[in-house]
Amino acid sequence: MSRQTEDIQRIAPRSGAHLRLQRGDILTVIDPDGQQVSDMIAYNRDDLAEYLSSGRSIDYASRMFLGKGDTLYSNRSNPMLTIIHDDVGRHDFTLTPCSIEMFRKLYPDEPPHRGCEGNLAAAIEHLGLSRDDVPIAFNIFMHVAVDGQTGEIAVRPPLSKAGDCIKFRADMDLEVALTACSAGQSNNFQYKPIDYFIERGETAPRQDEGG
Amino acid sequence: MSRQTEDIQRIAPRSGAHLRLQRGDILTVIDPDGQQVSDMIAYNRDDLAEYLSSGRSIDYASRMFLGKGDTLYSNRSNPMLTIIHDDVGRHDFTLTPCSIEMFRKLYPDEPPHRGCEGNLAAAIEHLGLSRDDVPIAFNIFMHVAVDGQTGEIAVRPPLSKAGDCIKFRADMDLEVALTACSAGQSNNFQYKPIDYFIERGETAPRQDEGG
Repeated sequence: MSRQTEDIQRIAPRSGAHLRLQRGDILTVIDPDGQQVSDMIAYNRDDLAEYLSSGRSIDYASRMFLGKGDTLYSNRSNPMLTIIHDDVGRHDFTLTPCSIEMFRKLYPDEPPHRGCEGNLAAAIEHLGLSRDDVPIAFNIFMHVAVDGQTGEIAVRPPLSKAGDCIKFRADMDLEVALTACSAGQSNNFQYKPIDYFIERGETAPRQDEGG
Repeated sequence: MSRQTEDIQRIAPRSGAHLRLQRGDILTVIDPDGQQVSDMIAYNRDDLAEYLSSGRSIDYASRMFLGKGDTLYSNRSNPMLTIIHDDVGRHDFTLTPCSIEMFRKLYPDEPPHRGCEGNLAAAIEHLGLSRDDVPIAFNIFMHVAVDGQTGEIAVRPPLSKAGDCIKFRADMDLEVALTACSAGQSNNFQYKPIDYFIERGETAPRQDEGG
């Protein structure tokens, strides 16, 4: 891979970023220091009412935990992103990004942060979208333990080690927002950055070329 | 309870209904024949951009499976409905309502049905909402088994017996849509009706009266 170091973008702790993908682009999300979470949402660039859907994706995979080879679907059942590489193998797709109200409830002793929801909403505001348009995110590296009998869940430190990454192939043209997680419970109370880079379709194999 | 039999409304198999609740009303949803599912969605009547959120509700309950005493929250973290009675104790809050595309994928041998998604969309169309506004539903009586280790899920026949019911107290003024499930896998391939009735706030205790 001929990627240059300067292509890597850094998302500062407790913040978010917007990026655009064309169909066939490869997005790599890296946990540079380990045990950090990145909430990801996506919209069809041609019709922003079509968005990433946890409920569709889990139903089609017949699995709560998605990993290498799994496709993330839109609410209209179209493939949006496919996981083509995954160092970690454990992500969450059930919980909404933390919001200012969640910070008030879950961390009553702290000044409330706008959370990943607020950071995602800020990242998509220029598209004409608001926080009501932020769906359940694909919570990269987030480790939510589930008791299959009682349904109890517990947010645990991520299994990601420093330098671990996940790679997505864009299956349509997308507007994407990503965060570096703001909620202590999700990242073992060590707020860290997230890195990402994009390999453009010029170099990445295009789906319509049989890649 | 002085309820009259004629107050009970019937949702025909594979169809949906719209209803309005005022804060303090009690909605009872009944499985008259057993092993049937009803997908429920809800919107704030004063601002339809505020909707029922599985991801918030699961996060606040710290449990995938919600039951008696649990509150269903909106995307803005406001209480929408509280479960005040539950004969069954097992419902799903992770999967999107079946859509026509899901029918094509999951039941390729059948003529595709518009599914609960289509029925819900039709029930809310007069409000100016569309199928893109249908969130993950609270899937009443739906039994989704979860393997906590692998994350594998399996849709099983509902645990509801004939006449079993669940009761919700409305915590805000709501537009609600309900279905009688259309997907064979969810209702043991026996398409049945769903019944419901509403006890209005005049007779039901109001939250602001300490009820």
